[in-house]
Amino acid sequence: MDEGENMDPDVGGQPRDAPRPKPWDGRFTDEQSPLFERLNASLPFDYVLAPYDLRGSKAHVRMLGSIGTLTPDEVSLLLAGLDRVAAEVAAGTFPWDLHDEDVHMAMERRLTELVGPVGGKVHTGRSRNDQVALDVQLYLREGVAGHLERIFDLMEVLLAGADRWRGVIMPGYTHLQRAQPVLLAHHLLAYVAMLERDAGRFLRWRESSWMPLGAGALAGVNYPLDRVMVAEELDFGRVADNAMDAVAARDAAFEYLAAAAACALNLSRLAEELVLWSSQEFGFVALPDAWTSGSSMMPQKKNPDGAELVRGKTAGFLGRLVSLGALVKGLPLAYNKDLQEDKLYLFASRSELDLCLEAMAAMMATLEVDAERTRVTAEGGYAQATDVADYLVARGLPFRDAHRVVGRLVALAAGADRTLASVSLDELRALSPLFDSTYYQVVDLERVVAGKISPGGTAPGRVAEQLAAATERLAVLRALRPPITAAGAG
Amino acid sequence: MDEGENMDPDVGGQPRDAPRPKPWDGRFTDEQSPLFERLNASLPFDYVLAPYDLRGSKAHVRMLGSIGTLTPDEVSLLLAGLDRVAAEVAAGTFPWDLHDEDVHMAMERRLTELVGPVGGKVHTGRSRNDQVALDVQLYLREGVAGHLERIFDLMEVLLAGADRWRGVIMPGYTHLQRAQPVLLAHHLLAYVAMLERDAGRFLRWRESSWMPLGAGALAGVNYPLDRVMVAEELDFGRVADNAMDAVAARDAAFEYLAAAAACALNLSRLAEELVLWSSQEFGFVALPDAWTSGSSMMPQKKNPDGAELVRGKTAGFLGRLVSLGALVKGLPLAYNKDLQEDKLYLFASRSELDLCLEAMAAMMATLEVDAERTRVTAEGGYAQATDVADYLVARGLPFRDAHRVVGRLVALAAGADRTLASVSLDELRALSPLFDSTYYQVVDLERVVAGKISPGGTAPGRVAEQLAAATERLAVLRALRPPITAAGAG
Amino acid sequence: MDEGENMDPDVGGQPRDAPRPKPWDGRFTDEQSPLFERLNASLPFDYVLAPYDLRGSKAHVRMLGSIGTLTPDEVSLLLAGLDRVAAEVAAGTFPWDLHDEDVHMAMERRLTELVGPVGGKVHTGRSRNDQVALDVQLYLREGVAGHLERIFDLMEVLLAGADRWRGVIMPGYTHLQRAQPVLLAHHLLAYVAMLERDAGRFLRWRESSWMPLGAGALAGVNYPLDRVMVAEELDFGRVADNAMDAVAARDAAFEYLAAAAACALNLSRLAEELVLWSSQEFGFVALPDAWTSGSSMMPQKKNPDGAELVRGKTAGFLGRLVSLGALVKGLPLAYNKDLQEDKLYLFASRSELDLCLEAMAAMMATLEVDAERTRVTAEGGYAQATDVADYLVARGLPFRDAHRVVGRLVALAAGADRTLASVSLDELRALSPLFDSTYYQVVDLERVVAGKISPGGTAPGRVAEQLAAATERLAVLRALRPPITAAGAG
Amino acid sequence: MDEGENMDPDVGGQPRDAPRPKPWDGRFTDEQSPLFERLNASLPFDYVLAPYDLRGSKAHVRMLGSIGTLTPDEVSLLLAGLDRVAAEVAAGTFPWDLHDEDVHMAMERRLTELVGPVGGKVHTGRSRNDQVALDVQLYLREGVAGHLERIFDLMEVLLAGADRWRGVIMPGYTHLQRAQPVLLAHHLLAYVAMLERDAGRFLRWRESSWMPLGAGALAGVNYPLDRVMVAEELDFGRVADNAMDAVAARDAAFEYLAAAAACALNLSRLAEELVLWSSQEFGFVALPDAWTSGSSMMPQKKNPDGAELVRGKTAGFLGRLVSLGALVKGLPLAYNKDLQEDKLYLFASRSELDLCLEAMAAMMATLEVDAERTRVTAEGGYAQATDVADYLVARGLPFRDAHRVVGRLVALAAGADRTLASVSLDELRALSPLFDSTYYQVVDLERVVAGKISPGGTAPGRVAEQLAAATERLAVLRALRPPITAAGAG
Repeated sequence: MDEGENMDPDVGGQPRDAPRPKPWDGRFTDEQSPLFERLNASLPFDYVLAPYDLRGSKAHVRMLGSIGTLTPDEVSLLLAGLDRVAAEVAAGTFPWDLHDEDVHMAMERRLTELVGPVGGKVHTGRSRNDQVALDVQLYLREGVAGHLERIFDLMEVLLAGADRWRGVIMPGYTHLQRAQPVLLAHHLLAYVAMLERDAGRFLRWRESSWMPLGAGALAGVNYPLDRVMVAEELDFGRVADNAMDAVAARDAAFEYLAAAAACALNLSRLAEELVLWSSQEFGFVALPDAWTSGSSMMPQKKNPDGAELVRGKTAGFLGRLVSLGALVKGLPLAYNKDLQEDKLYLFASRSELDLCLEAMAAMMATLEVDAERTRVTAEGGYAQATDVADYLVARGLPFRDAHRVVGRLVALAAGADRTLASVSLDELRALSPLFDSTYYQVVDLERVVAGKISPGGTAPGRVAEQLAAATERLAVLRALRPPITAAGAG
Repeated sequence: MDEGENMDPDVGGQPRDAPRPKPWDGRFTDEQSPLFERLNASLPFDYVLAPYDLRGSKAHVRMLGSIGTLTPDEVSLLLAGLDRVAAEVAAGTFPWDLHDEDVHMAMERRLTELVGPVGGKVHTGRSRNDQVALDVQLYLREGVAGHLERIFDLMEVLLAGADRWRGVIMPGYTHLQRAQPVLLAHHLLAYVAMLERDAGRFLRWRESSWMPLGAGALAGVNYPLDRVMVAEELDFGRVADNAMDAVAARDAAFEYLAAAAACALNLSRLAEELVLWSSQEFGFVALPDAWTSGSSMMPQKKNPDGAELVRGKTAGFLGRLVSLGALVKGLPLAYNKDLQEDKLYLFASRSELDLCLEAMAAMMATLEVDAERTRVTAEGGYAQATDVADYLVARGLPFRDAHRVVGRLVALAAGADRTLASVSLDELRALSPLFDSTYYQVVDLERVVAGKISPGGTAPGRVAEQLAAATERLAVLRALRPPITAAGAG
Repeated sequence: MDEGENMDPDVGGQPRDAPRPKPWDGRFTDEQSPLFERLNASLPFDYVLAPYDLRGSKAHVRMLGSIGTLTPDEVSLLLAGLDRVAAEVAAGTFPWDLHDEDVHMAMERRLTELVGPVGGKVHTGRSRNDQVALDVQLYLREGVAGHLERIFDLMEVLLAGADRWRGVIMPGYTHLQRAQPVLLAHHLLAYVAMLERDAGRFLRWRESSWMPLGAGALAGVNYPLDRVMVAEELDFGRVADNAMDAVAARDAAFEYLAAAAACALNLSRLAEELVLWSSQEFGFVALPDAWTSGSSMMPQKKNPDGAELVRGKTAGFLGRLVSLGALVKGLPLAYNKDLQEDKLYLFASRSELDLCLEAMAAMMATLEVDAERTRVTAEGGYAQATDVADYLVARGLPFRDAHRVVGRLVALAAGADRTLASVSLDELRALSPLFDSTYYQVVDLERVVAGKISPGGTAPGRVAEQLAAATERLAVLRALRPPITAAGAG
Repeated sequence: MDEGENMDPDVGGQPRDAPRPKPWDGRFTDEQSPLFERLNASLPFDYVLAPYDLRGSKAHVRMLGSIGTLTPDEVSLLLAGLDRVAAEVAAGTFPWDLHDEDVHMAMERRLTELVGPVGGKVHTGRSRNDQVALDVQLYLREGVAGHLERIFDLMEVLLAGADRWRGVIMPGYTHLQRAQPVLLAHHLLAYVAMLERDAGRFLRWRESSWMPLGAGALAGVNYPLDRVMVAEELDFGRVADNAMDAVAARDAAFEYLAAAAACALNLSRLAEELVLWSSQEFGFVALPDAWTSGSSMMPQKKNPDGAELVRGKTAGFLGRLVSLGALVKGLPLAYNKDLQEDKLYLFASRSELDLCLEAMAAMMATLEVDAERTRVTAEGGYAQATDVADYLVARGLPFRDAHRVVGRLVALAAGADRTLASVSLDELRALSPLFDSTYYQVVDLERVVAGKISPGGTAPGRVAEQLAAATERLAVLRALRPPITAAGAG
């Protein structure tokens, strides 16, 4: 895509007679190199912007009519033509031609074929620099709406899981070592919290995004455009204040890629847990057949390909983010051709994030949990040891002595692969005469979990509280979510 | 820094008698490897967290008093002790000891030395996992406040420049080729807009940051903590809902690094322009002596080291961002030791960003602009060519013919290194009889600039409008800026 | 691409009757999710491996014949069938079917359609894990051969330029400030040296690449394969020693991406110089029309799109490199599905690097240099100042005084935009009576350049020496270059 | 560090009287900003180059003597002085002064203090640009020698482990699912192969590194230096051919960082496996106490901090690599101040890699393996299923039927958590009458492993072959390893 004003002799916005593929070629003595055209052409990827480009053109045409730059007849003709082009794009019948170089030229060429020379007037008062900036904004805004919907769906799946597996106890890990027993619901709610922040990042991004059209090539144009009207029609809350900024800045694109990467990173951690939990060694969950690949000979084997791919795809998000940064670093204002590459990163991150979110929601929705296995594993973590020490201290044993006794107790149990609850009173008394049968209440796993009563803790009441609050907030977020406009609408 | 619950046998938060450097060493038969200690110790870098750690501890102690877990006497003793430790840290007299392993152990060890065994009670109801999470939040929140102040200062400098150089015309560039004449003020306002978005990102980050203390190791603790009270004392708007999320998540840190990188990228573009503009080839500006290095022999030479370093340091921001991403990718919940490395990235980006912002403000504040040179250069861009063609079209020449005539006109001028305004009427009439003396109004640079009347355009009125609006918004932002709390205060 | 052994029940290499799209689906009760298939399928991108896959299969079949695992008849049938499949691929008539999931399944399915059940025997003694590892090695080795040819072509273009512009003096820059006059040839030879190291990296990569086939899924296979025979047929110098390493390692892919990134970074610096040099401000060169885009209205304007795109595309190389790193980091052995993503990075870097190298060679081959402008600019750098000071010192002036005199001399010249050579003897004598007419030899630009006589310096003799040596080394390198085998050959 | 020629008025190399901290300050009317000095000063980190700087200076002085530029007396004085400075640096008594700005100024200032004005002659015929380039080359070459030694040590530890645990069978994993039984030695040899390639990358890097001194600022110097003599004294195999390349290129630094990152990535995979294997769920290994942290209450818990940190530190290598790439991208020749930042990346990667390699060798050397647990786990993988199907096919059952029978067999065993060997003949016959007692040989784990007889396979003979070959190659590599020169020597 050449976003350049140079493709457009009338940067001030004067209409021109008819689109000319290479309007400057009069002065060039040599043909452009085919290799250069291969390097230069953006149509092979920017064609996806077509619906957004047309939507922006319609808003632009209406505005030009409202300020008297186009006559009502011209407006009608152009809008009807743009609708016809949009219909062709939607139907897959649009006659793409690589000689158009970029999507903007393609749309205008076709419009003019359909409505005649007046088609050229669509470009009055704009340049391809602000046009592509608008297209990308519309593209990303719609992308964000789609991400939000999928994030909310995944949150819902996780909340449903937290509710369904409310009583399931599992080991909480640090350093991949069993640390403390927690409710599975508590664990899942951690991801709900992360996803809520992901949604927040996308919502804030959308609020702060701005409408660039009307900036011309970099200096504004010679018409008293009504940019607020265009912004309102396209549902933007803000208009870019400065024409040069509007076409040159890429910080919003960088912020978008960072938000997408942050979300992917969160998903990668859940994906890693699915890989671990579905291994035979952990055995906590079974992934749905629909998300694994297997082996005809080894029926116990289900490869967690879906989770691995979500984890793996995260690397691409980081690469694209850093690519955009390296692309923009040290570029002087305003437009430089390098910036054409940004679309590759943006397009890939939008579609990959949707894919990862959908995949994760589908996997989590059909996950089977082996609650017996998670519970037994938690027992094997001896996480009650701390409470046993407190018990002995409460009975008068100095802390260090209590510590020593409990160390021996755990060694005894772990050596024989037994739980703390299975140690007999005789065995206990051999370690310390202070033990009595109330010990068995202390080492009860449910009791340990129930003791974590601080707000946000894993005690069932606290988890229920979190679950209710998160469910409520999700409803609010769903209401805030921007509608997913069909790109061609408007 | 080992943030682990494992350093703290009482993850549930029970007080313990006295800090023990390695509380678990009873069971370890081997000493830790000195190499491991070198790998493991975080005190060499996390010591900067000391004031935040102490501030968090004071809030924690007050809260424990308010819920009756500590007695009023204990609270008084601990607060006084923490103040004494803070005073030592501030005065540089704190007795650092690498055996403390991390800053949390160092603070608690010293507190206990000063107030006796009651010092250990400061750790009631918390673990190092939530403690370090709080420290980092406080550190970053203060960092953000500092960034905001510096961003606003730089915006102010740029606004002052836009005002001072209000009449300066310069070439606007695309592809580093002269494209259209613009006001220097217009160009500077593009950076004001970028910086305003940078400020927005930091402000939104701050609003969405949350108070993690009370999460314990990952499961919550055995006390009915009043977490909202702690959040209020520390000026947080939110409390982390889920204990596991509170200690395991790093998406806020990633968002912070992304916001810092976005800001650095914006600065790098201005830095690049300073390098270009101060080259002899451009000659637009002279950088202040205080920000360059020179050569005794070549007085015309002033190396723009300051600008180059700002540009160069941007690469580090990208590296640290991608490092955090690669660090977190695929880490299961909750805490993993890998996460200790995050502090290296966060600390460096905070201090480097402040440095870059200050440097840029200082350079821009003392920049000298050669307004004659920028104007002459703009004339040499022949940006009025479009308007000349319009002029001929308005006089009845078909567009393509007008285009051809203007092409020849520019070739004539450029070949002799002359401006369009210097072409005589005779020369013009040789190209087309339609030319008359009104041509000289058309090619007047001021008139071209004045024609860009769309909102956000470079017409002086539009630029004045932008300048006024940006100035007003900056005042509002300054009012929103969170105070920079002295870390030890509270 | 699923490289998994799991697709292949006979990991030990036993032949099977016929390809079954999902051999394990007997035990799966649910269908695979269409979303999962979209996530999982690699055929949309790994189809480019088809010629390599077939070439590897032919070598494998011949080897199986030589150790008696296949009969001569089977070998003949299979080789003929593989040739027919290769012909279909080459002719574009291969019946691609997305249900094949990956290129390996597609090739084997088609082979069996063409030759009957014996087609399945091609998979004897291998798994898809080692098969894809081989395909990627062959793909990259051919890629490297292509890179080398293009690097050598660009070196040749630069050497020709160094020869053609042998007498052209230009300013050498540091900090983008004019520092010392150099020959343009000297400057171009710097890039020749960089490219020679790029070639060295690719050559060393190729020498150290290894033949993985025969590793099976991860443990080797049940046949006494003759892996050296396969390696020789495919022109590898080494066989992977360890089966698990052969399928799990990605360090060679990482090294390849790093070498490609290093080369792109070198190109990006030359690209930046083309952008600078072709700006009106520098005016050193004119880029060929075939590699720029222009403006019909501003004939003096030629946007250096080609150079900008080469510079911009460099960012993608960095992103892909870091993506592969983040992908592989912390992955346990052996194969994990994440690794499927590596192909996306490798394929893109191979084709993008070829494009950038070709573009740069084409641009440099047709570059026009304005030798008058570069010379005048070098004069304006006052780089002879140092030599003038020496001249005065030699005549007895203390160094500090000489320094002061020269400072005033340069200020006088720079203030009036004059060269040092244009300062009259009277003016000189007003500064110091030690000046006489030999001064004009000292400030002669050619003389300054000629003085840089250290080996590698910019004195014409030294540059000629470098040019001759580099030309000779290039001839040697060309001889070392591996042939670009048509992928299907063999 | 300012590497600029600008610090040095005599870029051609003329001696000067005495070091002047800011030789250009005569013309600067303003003081440099303290903030700028903070931004600019490199001494806080480049002081580590001191021994290399001195070694390079000694070689330079000897060479200047040999070509007659310095007298024998001057050479003696300077060498003695440089030795005294080196002794001060080594003893920690060097009087560092931040006003020196960079290490080169510091060394020269001190030299002149010690030997008088002749000290300034050390800078004859060089600039700080080529000086720092040499220092960095020497620094990295020594770094590489250190890496190689540590890589070889780790390889030796792994080879010793492969020998010690020669009979240990463990599950080989794909997708973290048990795939095929392998020898632990086979698994460890995969890492030996990776490390051998890491060593190869460093060795090739060293061979291709070159001696830059004599390039001056960018154009060469006015003396007929004997650069080959310097290269030989400093043990370089090559001299940089082109002066501009010698000071401007950073591709060798990039290649170094990429090699370091590749090595770290390999280590991160072993680190991940240590984390997994030492989890209670896997239970394959016990990490040495010296490399873990524990919990006083949970004696069974040993946090694998050492392995986690190695894994985590890998992220920093990726970040530094991409930072250098982003730093260099699009920088015109020759020196730009941005490049000062490269040292931060290089210094960190050198020291971090040594730390990671040492840590991993120490951990692997003292690892305890639970051979019973690995074997039982491998049995639970049912990896013999394929061989059972072959067994039935050999007895005449059609493949698909055999497949179905084995599927039911595995389901029977897995459902009851039994091994295949534990299924009774009666149970087998109920599935198919073709079973007889030879079945028990087929499912014998040792036999399955022994069957993988392809070169590189996991059959004990093949593993022994690999072990012997790797041991032999390591001996060869050790012999190739460059000596670690004490930096100050020479």
